[in-house]
Amino acid sequence: MRSRGETGRTFAKIATLGEEGGVRAGETVWLRGRVSAIRGKGSSCFLVLRAIDSPSRTVQACYFKSKEDAEGSKRFLRFLNDLTLESIVDVKGLVAAAEVKSCSQGSVEVQIERCYVLSKAPAILPFLMEDAARSEEEIAASQGSEKPFSPVYQEARLDNRWLDLRVPANHAIMRVQSAICQLFREALYAENFIEIHTPKLISGESEGGAEVFRTDYFGRSACLAQSPQLYKQMAISGDLGRVFEIGPVFRAEKSNTRRHLCEFTGLDLEMAIEEHYNETLLLLHSLFKHIFLGLESRFSSELSVVRSQYKSLPVQFTEEPCILHWEEAIQMLRDAGEEAELLEDLSSSLELKLGELVKNKFDTDFFILDRFPAAVRPFYTMPCPDDERFTNSYDVFLRGQEICSGAQRVHDPALLISQESPKKGMPLEPLQAYVTSFQHGVSPHAGAGIGLERVVFLYLGLDNVRKASMFPRDPSRCSP
Amino acid sequence: MRSRGETGRTFAKIATLGEEGGVRAGETVWLRGRVSAIRGKGSSCFLVLRAIDSPSRTVQACYFKSKEDAEGSKRFLRFLNDLTLESIVDVKGLVAAAEVKSCSQGSVEVQIERCYVLSKAPAILPFLMEDAARSEEEIAASQGSEKPFSPVYQEARLDNRWLDLRVPANHAIMRVQSAICQLFREALYAENFIEIHTPKLISGESEGGAEVFRTDYFGRSACLAQSPQLYKQMAISGDLGRVFEIGPVFRAEKSNTRRHLCEFTGLDLEMAIEEHYNETLLLLHSLFKHIFLGLESRFSSELSVVRSQYKSLPVQFTEEPCILHWEEAIQMLRDAGEEAELLEDLSSSLELKLGELVKNKFDTDFFILDRFPAAVRPFYTMPCPDDERFTNSYDVFLRGQEICSGAQRVHDPALLISQESPKKGMPLEPLQAYVTSFQHGVSPHAGAGIGLERVVFLYLGLDNVRKASMFPRDPSRCSP
Repeated sequence: MRSRGETGRTFAKIATLGEEGGVRAGETVWLRGRVSAIRGKGSSCFLVLRAIDSPSRTVQACYFKSKEDAEGSKRFLRFLNDLTLESIVDVKGLVAAAEVKSCSQGSVEVQIERCYVLSKAPAILPFLMEDAARSEEEIAASQGSEKPFSPVYQEARLDNRWLDLRVPANHAIMRVQSAICQLFREALYAENFIEIHTPKLISGESEGGAEVFRTDYFGRSACLAQSPQLYKQMAISGDLGRVFEIGPVFRAEKSNTRRHLCEFTGLDLEMAIEEHYNETLLLLHSLFKHIFLGLESRFSSELSVVRSQYKSLPVQFTEEPCILHWEEAIQMLRDAGEEAELLEDLSSSLELKLGELVKNKFDTDFFILDRFPAAVRPFYTMPCPDDERFTNSYDVFLRGQEICSGAQRVHDPALLISQESPKKGMPLEPLQAYVTSFQHGVSPHAGAGIGLERVVFLYLGLDNVRKASMFPRDPSRCSP
Repeated sequence: MRSRGETGRTFAKIATLGEEGGVRAGETVWLRGRVSAIRGKGSSCFLVLRAIDSPSRTVQACYFKSKEDAEGSKRFLRFLNDLTLESIVDVKGLVAAAEVKSCSQGSVEVQIERCYVLSKAPAILPFLMEDAARSEEEIAASQGSEKPFSPVYQEARLDNRWLDLRVPANHAIMRVQSAICQLFREALYAENFIEIHTPKLISGESEGGAEVFRTDYFGRSACLAQSPQLYKQMAISGDLGRVFEIGPVFRAEKSNTRRHLCEFTGLDLEMAIEEHYNETLLLLHSLFKHIFLGLESRFSSELSVVRSQYKSLPVQFTEEPCILHWEEAIQMLRDAGEEAELLEDLSSSLELKLGELVKNKFDTDFFILDRFPAAVRPFYTMPCPDDERFTNSYDVFLRGQEICSGAQRVHDPALLISQESPKKGMPLEPLQAYVTSFQHGVSPHAGAGIGLERVVFLYLGLDNVRKASMFPRDPSRCSP
């Protein structure tokens, strides 16, 4: 198809076939779909056609050998039986009433009159879509049977991610990811935020040396931003007031875990505050509520498709913010017999344990941990006014793992310079501008950075953050 | 302010003072604002306070020496007169009826009772905000007078971009930029698009060698994406159907022009088409209409602030798409006495000329130039079915300059491989995956990439694309 011209064909959507208000039995339609199953016998052929933009929708299409045109119909039957799985076909046919258990469109089938191959897949694919679409539970349950199902391993999926994305649950995960961005922006537009785009190429050398990607920038050295931190704060110096950004974040960390990526999508926000950084905590709470409620109400069909392969329950959360102070959290852990240091960071297992304790005590999967120790936060974090060992900074937790980190920032340039130390160093050139921007007068401000793929992965109870990234990047994968 | 605790102060917005439904004369309020002018005499001080989140709004605040407390009031007067421009202050005072020509809030002033400095700017700033806020016309008109105004040069502005962003017109430009993203997404959500995030770090060597930024990726070579092209197409192979992305695009081009940046924001889309790539052209036309109409109706106050410093008229456009074929455009140029080659690209001056001719003939600043010559388009561009010297590809023009480029893509892997040549080379590793993804079956598709800063700069008739980027990047600037 080189767009020669319109043929006048109108394509019916597979999802409307036999549905209320859609195409009913008796009509002749053109359909475009993926060949998702082929069951051929000597005198008939049954195809399952999968909707291209909504892969959980399928319809049966069939053809029977005709007595009138025995030769022609035999040839056509052979053509149909020779189709390959995952090929894209245009089918013309009569919609007829039927009872089809194996397809989402269960009340009709399509009696094929014509069929053209638009894009042909090879006979052998890296894995079968039906294998890739099974839940762990189904696979486990089949292991005692005569024909145990094979799992499809993550590396094979990611090497052929386009195939993997056609799996209904994965397709729905990408829609949930998009929905979260939409809900994030909606909530912030309503609060008078504007969207900004900060540079990802940053002049000068960088943090500690190990954790950034470097590049040559016309003969000088530049690195890739590990966050929009300095720039969103300079936007506050520029009086943009309340800003958000959705953009890539780069971390050259050799962390081969289930929850780290070398490139992820940051949902960032920064806001001038009037009196107290609680203003930001309240905003974060209602922002996440808007996202959670919006997902369950407006994207429930996507959620149910995901949950049919990857089991999970909706996230439980409290109406009012559940804010836990650091010292309180450490006490809870100690009371439960854990060894937790007051001025050190929590290990991931302690985080999970804390999540459990909070769940038991407050009946929520979602809470804010406030007043982190100064020693584990960056130099630009505002100290607590009542105890300098702690800071006006917070993490947001979902199902026992961090999805968001934030703080009130030091807006006083003298304090900022005194807190800056080589250990906590940042890229030098932007840092200079950053301090100068504060010297030129800046509003007190606070903000947060959310990891999009983390939210998707934890909200949906997935076992790996890579399932929430379209083309994930980790220390051993930079392709496709 | 280390967020010690809420003081119970309620801050009034400067923009509401004396306005219908806002704070009226007779009320006592707290205000937070930037000191934007100070006029002190022996017995009085007049301040102009600028609203922080909306810098086109200003109010006068005044203080008069009192007879009752001569000493105290003298000290306070000295304090007020010693304030520095651009400092942020909290002022408590009585709102009183007044006629103030120099402020946006013209019917009231604030009689200062208390004043605290929240963030102090230095006595001397890199440039004065009032100089930075003048239009070219005002500056030009003043040149014959006794006190000609000084212009503020671009480099000084960009070196201190946070100050420059406080200029009302620049602040409004950033709001227009945000609005365009909002309108872009709105239009696409309504057409069933979903948002994706493609990797910016791409494995392998790249295009021609000169125009990409390279980095070490855990011992291998990677480069920064020059566009999300290959990945948004692989999303189509993955049956995501209709996708868009807003994200950074990196070009290591040594182009020191008014319209090129080394890092800009791409508004990208890609869609499966049913029959003809005209489906995409129609969508692009209504997308831009939604943006233009939305800007003029919903963001008219931002536009008028921009236009008060940088003159421009609204963009003229046609109700139905104005689509010009390449051959027709070349003929128009030749008829106007220009030398234009049929199979070569247009120079920027020919583009501008074409824009003029189209404006005269069709009364529009906005049109689509279709059927570009194959020689000037990338290898993945679908050839025209009727003449292989041309392609199913297009650029969108605004006021005679390109803001968007797109095409139907080759979805047939054999044709794709045959069109690929070293000259038109792309990063090898993702290219392999890209071709394989098409071999596994892909829908015919078309798409486009829009340059956000280009749209802002041309829509607002600015003289330089850097004015449309918050922290611009060019071959000689990577900081702040």
